[in-house]
Amino acid sequence: MKLYDSYGPNPYTVRLFVLERSGISLEVQPVDILNLENRRPPYTSGVNPRGELPALTLDNGTVITEITAICEYLDEIATAGTTLIGTNAEERAQTRMWTRRVYLDICHNFVNWWRNGDDAADFYRGYRIPNPSARDTEKLITNQALNRLDADLEGKTFICGDRLTMADIVLFGFINVMLPVVPWLNPPGRLNVAAWFSRMSNRTHSANALQPFPEGAFSG
Amino acid sequence: MKLYDSYGPNPYTVRLFVLERSGISLEVQPVDILNLENRRPPYTSGVNPRGELPALTLDNGTVITEITAICEYLDEIATAGTTLIGTNAEERAQTRMWTRRVYLDICHNFVNWWRNGDDAADFYRGYRIPNPSARDTEKLITNQALNRLDADLEGKTFICGDRLTMADIVLFGFINVMLPVVPWLNPPGRLNVAAWFSRMSNRTHSANALQPFPEGAFSG
Repeated sequence: MKLYDSYGPNPYTVRLFVLERSGISLEVQPVDILNLENRRPPYTSGVNPRGELPALTLDNGTVITEITAICEYLDEIATAGTTLIGTNAEERAQTRMWTRRVYLDICHNFVNWWRNGDDAADFYRGYRIPNPSARDTEKLITNQALNRLDADLEGKTFICGDRLTMADIVLFGFINVMLPVVPWLNPPGRLNVAAWFSRMSNRTHSANALQPFPEGAFSG
Repeated sequence: MKLYDSYGPNPYTVRLFVLERSGISLEVQPVDILNLENRRPPYTSGVNPRGELPALTLDNGTVITEITAICEYLDEIATAGTTLIGTNAEERAQTRMWTRRVYLDICHNFVNWWRNGDDAADFYRGYRIPNPSARDTEKLITNQALNRLDADLEGKTFICGDRLTMADIVLFGFINVMLPVVPWLNPPGRLNVAAWFSRMSNRTHSANALQPFPEGAFSG
């Protein structure tokens, strides 16, 4: 099993999931997205024609992309540690519900706000279509969703209550990586979101996951 | 267990999943979204403050929303029939990968194309923020993603190959319901997408799921 790893919020989210989950062993292959290695063969011909990172290739050659699919797969096959999805159908449903909510309501909007700006046009070099006129709405919807999350977090340690889940890792992963280029994401006043973000930041693995994993065998 | 049901692509997708999955019994409560019943108590106070449909309330009061979370939950607890997620970790990963791809690349873009138009402004009455200037890009990205899916479907019966999954149901559900108001979705020339859509349309339950379930007990 090989993880194709790189910079950016999606690879960070999977690395943080791997570290928090534990019980996962894999080979790591870094891919240099800054120099478009992900847009050329052998990556596009042998791993992912879409050029997205991360990707997980299984020993039989099957390629899994999409961060939530990768995380759920790794959670299922982990040989130690504690599930980050849930121990029963109800817990798993709550994790999946909140993961989809925070991604679609929050992450997707502020990442697209960045993707629709000038810095991203230089980064993507034509591999994404920018639409600057969408940015005002994307910022507004992100802020509305974070305001709602602030109310939803009242009295909770994590998004699903007392247990750390994929929902926390996806939302924290995206905010933590994008905050330098989306500076309006973490304003004063959203007390519950700020406290949750601080709790997540203070976890040991949150800093450990910032750099791509070294090439070669990984066991965590 | 009670399903709050209504019109639109999200409720249709869950109904089609329930019918294709089988082995699921629940109570059904229709909600009149055309008259904003979903934006008022008791729905907003007792079921889903976000006003979204469908929602599934478990017997202990837990509320599950988000169509993929609801479908995965129902798949896990079904007492008969065949899984639409997968029989092992690899199949489940492929289902989740394709479900997220088709939703984010295709469904999300063409639904937002509609939501950002004039008809939707009257439908949502202020409950969504329209951004008409995003529509050209949303239509372009939808078409690019459908072109890519056309290549991906070459030689396949369903999106994941030989097995019907949640990915087919989500994509077909959204296209089937939205086609009357997104008429550019199904143009000539995408032969594999057209053949797949035709196969899905011809399944018995695709028509059966068009109307909300009647109020009361459902067993399928």
